[in-house]
Amino acid sequence: MSPRNPSFSGVIPPVVTPLTTDGELDTKSLERLVGFLLEGGVTGLFALGSSGEMAYLTPRQQDAVIDVIVGAAGGQVPVLVGAIEPTTNRVIERAEMAAKRGADAIVTTAPFYARTHESEIERHFRTVASAVPLPLLAYDIPVCVHSKLAVDQLLSLAADGVLAGVKDSSGDDVSFRRLALAGAEVPRFALLTGHEAVVDAMLLGGADGSVPGLGNVDPHGYARLDAAARAGDWRTARTEQDRLARLFDIVLAADTATASGTAAGLGSFKTALMLRGIIDTQVVSPPMRPLDERETETVRAHLVRAGLL
Amino acid sequence: MSPRNPSFSGVIPPVVTPLTTDGELDTKSLERLVGFLLEGGVTGLFALGSSGEMAYLTPRQQDAVIDVIVGAAGGQVPVLVGAIEPTTNRVIERAEMAAKRGADAIVTTAPFYARTHESEIERHFRTVASAVPLPLLAYDIPVCVHSKLAVDQLLSLAADGVLAGVKDSSGDDVSFRRLALAGAEVPRFALLTGHEAVVDAMLLGGADGSVPGLGNVDPHGYARLDAAARAGDWRTARTEQDRLARLFDIVLAADTATASGTAAGLGSFKTALMLRGIIDTQVVSPPMRPLDERETETVRAHLVRAGLL
Amino acid sequence: MSPRNPSFSGVIPPVVTPLTTDGELDTKSLERLVGFLLEGGVTGLFALGSSGEMAYLTPRQQDAVIDVIVGAAGGQVPVLVGAIEPTTNRVIERAEMAAKRGADAIVTTAPFYARTHESEIERHFRTVASAVPLPLLAYDIPVCVHSKLAVDQLLSLAADGVLAGVKDSSGDDVSFRRLALAGAEVPRFALLTGHEAVVDAMLLGGADGSVPGLGNVDPHGYARLDAAARAGDWRTARTEQDRLARLFDIVLAADTATASGTAAGLGSFKTALMLRGIIDTQVVSPPMRPLDERETETVRAHLVRAGLL
Amino acid sequence: MSPRNPSFSGVIPPVVTPLTTDGELDTKSLERLVGFLLEGGVTGLFALGSSGEMAYLTPRQQDAVIDVIVGAAGGQVPVLVGAIEPTTNRVIERAEMAAKRGADAIVTTAPFYARTHESEIERHFRTVASAVPLPLLAYDIPVCVHSKLAVDQLLSLAADGVLAGVKDSSGDDVSFRRLALAGAEVPRFALLTGHEAVVDAMLLGGADGSVPGLGNVDPHGYARLDAAARAGDWRTARTEQDRLARLFDIVLAADTATASGTAAGLGSFKTALMLRGIIDTQVVSPPMRPLDERETETVRAHLVRAGLL
Repeated sequence: MSPRNPSFSGVIPPVVTPLTTDGELDTKSLERLVGFLLEGGVTGLFALGSSGEMAYLTPRQQDAVIDVIVGAAGGQVPVLVGAIEPTTNRVIERAEMAAKRGADAIVTTAPFYARTHESEIERHFRTVASAVPLPLLAYDIPVCVHSKLAVDQLLSLAADGVLAGVKDSSGDDVSFRRLALAGAEVPRFALLTGHEAVVDAMLLGGADGSVPGLGNVDPHGYARLDAAARAGDWRTARTEQDRLARLFDIVLAADTATASGTAAGLGSFKTALMLRGIIDTQVVSPPMRPLDERETETVRAHLVRAGLL
Repeated sequence: MSPRNPSFSGVIPPVVTPLTTDGELDTKSLERLVGFLLEGGVTGLFALGSSGEMAYLTPRQQDAVIDVIVGAAGGQVPVLVGAIEPTTNRVIERAEMAAKRGADAIVTTAPFYARTHESEIERHFRTVASAVPLPLLAYDIPVCVHSKLAVDQLLSLAADGVLAGVKDSSGDDVSFRRLALAGAEVPRFALLTGHEAVVDAMLLGGADGSVPGLGNVDPHGYARLDAAARAGDWRTARTEQDRLARLFDIVLAADTATASGTAAGLGSFKTALMLRGIIDTQVVSPPMRPLDERETETVRAHLVRAGLL
Repeated sequence: MSPRNPSFSGVIPPVVTPLTTDGELDTKSLERLVGFLLEGGVTGLFALGSSGEMAYLTPRQQDAVIDVIVGAAGGQVPVLVGAIEPTTNRVIERAEMAAKRGADAIVTTAPFYARTHESEIERHFRTVASAVPLPLLAYDIPVCVHSKLAVDQLLSLAADGVLAGVKDSSGDDVSFRRLALAGAEVPRFALLTGHEAVVDAMLLGGADGSVPGLGNVDPHGYARLDAAARAGDWRTARTEQDRLARLFDIVLAADTATASGTAAGLGSFKTALMLRGIIDTQVVSPPMRPLDERETETVRAHLVRAGLL
Repeated sequence: MSPRNPSFSGVIPPVVTPLTTDGELDTKSLERLVGFLLEGGVTGLFALGSSGEMAYLTPRQQDAVIDVIVGAAGGQVPVLVGAIEPTTNRVIERAEMAAKRGADAIVTTAPFYARTHESEIERHFRTVASAVPLPLLAYDIPVCVHSKLAVDQLLSLAADGVLAGVKDSSGDDVSFRRLALAGAEVPRFALLTGHEAVVDAMLLGGADGSVPGLGNVDPHGYARLDAAARAGDWRTARTEQDRLARLFDIVLAADTATASGTAAGLGSFKTALMLRGIIDTQVVSPPMRPLDERETETVRAHLVRAGLL
């Protein structure tokens, strides 16, 4: 549909991080999950993203996650690794570690916690990019970072070769469309959407691919959706997306009187993967709580309805 | 694609309110604009929406706008009228006036200015609906109202016959998709998107129609886009939308160092309509400023590029 | 403590608007309330503020409120009247009406609902001030208006004679202190705090007076607090404020699972006034709900503890 | 004024972290700064707070800062150390390290980055407190953390011995007053304000002490202010605070067209300390920029006016 040649495209799920009952990394489950995703047809793996519980893992745990995913991927698809820390030097430290351990690309956000500024965001991405010899993708997630990356800034960073792409979880469709329309200028720049419930719409609007948290649970579905869209078969893409959008209601299973949105979302993905037999537990990191029995049954019902159990 | 039979669908632009150089309603220009829109193929008219400068018009001016639009429409298409006030009694007062003057439906938001609550929003819509004998549409526009209408609330109000539809300007795609998926349950409930730059994507995702501010400037384009989507010709729909999304950059013409986003947006629509010869001035209400000469030239360049001049 | 000569000072409660059981203005109760406030030692009355339910009253009701308060005040203290509408022309219309009906000053906010801009806020206040031949006070209430008035802007509008004062409900102490420190430059400019729980602290920091919603319930207490602070007796001021701050917990009486903060606050003031025998009902405007029996008992307990029943 | 016996009180500045021109910790300058603060009469030191550039320092750098401050303090005053990370396990890791290196108390925020929930905040503080054998203070700073700690939650955590105090940088005076009023119940719970421009007002309202970033620049002033307030001499306290509030305008020296609020604030403190001869450079961490020459002259003028140069 366009002469784009993005550095990354297709379905690149943000891999969840399975934990043992005592809260440590469950290596075996993570290996099984990577195998499941590869078998499901994903075109990349995003380690240590929001769905990967990155913000909850200590540096040592993060290192272990990278090692397992890189090892299990075995070079079949690129492994993008999140280096998501409040400020520049801390991002660089994590990005260098990821590079050393075999990452194929680094994903980072604008600075957070401390109040920041467009000029600092600019300096941040440029400094990280020159410090780390890997493609760098910007992660635009205002709900966590509390600032939105500006379209013009992203485009100029792309044109200068600082950014190889963006994972957009901003919910700002108009900005996204502007990025897509300017794509002809920077054909290698990868536009990836993080909104798993509207991937068909984003692909119609010019996305190169998706980073669907729900893709952990149903990689085959996202692979079919992506293939249909690429073939211009939008009716099929929409039908597949409608099924996945219904499945996405698993994130509503948890009682939000006692769970954060993060715990509800992550917890439902892990619960679904446990129910599908891919990972061993539904444990999430403190201070989140796991889904309880009743909530687990709700997830199970959704899986059955979606044809996954 | 679904057995929906929505009460409103297609292209329903929020009609801008042309002003004379001394800031009064320009009746002749408004009549010409309505004629232009009808000729362009719109399926409804939304008077006194955000693009209609509703928040800037006194009650007397609002009455005049309704009279002109209802008169000029002449029953060819339904006229939806905004009754947008901070609280229930004030909305009812305006809605009754609109009904008396010939409106076919009322559009209103959740309460604003004073802090509100989901239970108050519920009571608000129910009270307005029972007071006014016209179909009622909810206007979901968090950027103005500072609260988001909940999907479940909208669906239950729809199921109870309180709401005939929603104009979604929330930018929350996931909520919108949830509304669309639940559409089979309430086939008359109209899902209208207010995001003019991504109408193709929203139609793919299940919208029944659009309320595009930019539709004032290029109603023919939106009509073609809508027709293509209805025919399942998504390639054509996307191409048309891409052209319109580029045209939408007219809202970036104004220097935001001295203009609000509202002034930039409204001002560019009025300027474009003036340049196209539909309305006489680019005047906007105080405290906004109109676009200046340089900004006007930027708008002109966009119109030329879009094939509209 | 400073050579200030502010246009307004002391205790200027935002007068609540008593309603009959069928939701209309309760004239007798409002007259009694004004008498109670004057007897309590207030130095001014603020009609149609947030506590006055301004956002919930139709223009006709607002007119009636002004008439009753101006009449009952009988020139003993100045009557400030809120003209709080989304944009300039609508504010002017209401301000002119208030002036005609005997207001001594007008209080207005920055534009709201539509997105605005510092330059528009500037034009807004200047345009209103030149249209209305009464002192104009700015009402800084970001929780309703969703923008904060800038210190430098307020100071320059004060210096130019556009603004006679500000009612600060912003919760931004640092800005408030900056305004107070710059006070020597504009001795007539009145700095009034809207935060009834910390009036002692604000007076210590340079406020000229207060606009306490809770002052409806206990005007005598606020008058004592104000007098002690003026006399430099901060120990007494603090003790009085501590009592009033505890009394302010009546705003927590309502169950926020079913009431907005506005309904909880307004509702508790009205309930307390009903229990004290000043007004007849605790009715609030739709879509708010009144306090229920249990909540009313909680308010009663607070009044007893505060020595008011 | 009350039978309080808080665990921490008085003036506890958040110590800035001096850097060398190549961005590494400037040990000599930090030692001089600690000596200056002790000589100025502070009653505690807060290492690795927001003013300490905590969010910008790698774990290794943070360790070095603790070592220098603990060493230079030499047991004369307690050293509170920030362990400020997005989630529980990461906080515990940093808190254990601080404990090992001689911290007297730990300061931590609610979880940030990932969306959180009141129940998770509760679990977060409880889990950290039981993991680390040091007093724990909550840091309430919504501008960074994007959630506000609830008064009732703080009080129950205090009553249970989980929290030894709170550093309030929330700007929510009413909540603060509620905490202060409930203080009789939990006499050891320390109420510390982070708002350096209104310390007099907060002490009047019941604060036990202050954590003033500006206290780095003028510890003597804050010590005088604190002493006057403790003596009930509010006139002197206010006069001192007025001087300090004017001095606080150094945070406005930087051009915010090119600097974040954080860079402007931290940069001005460091610049002032450099001009006063306490530290060697005005260098700040990337991606912030240091103040330029013109901005430095503005800071100098403020210091001269405040009698500090």
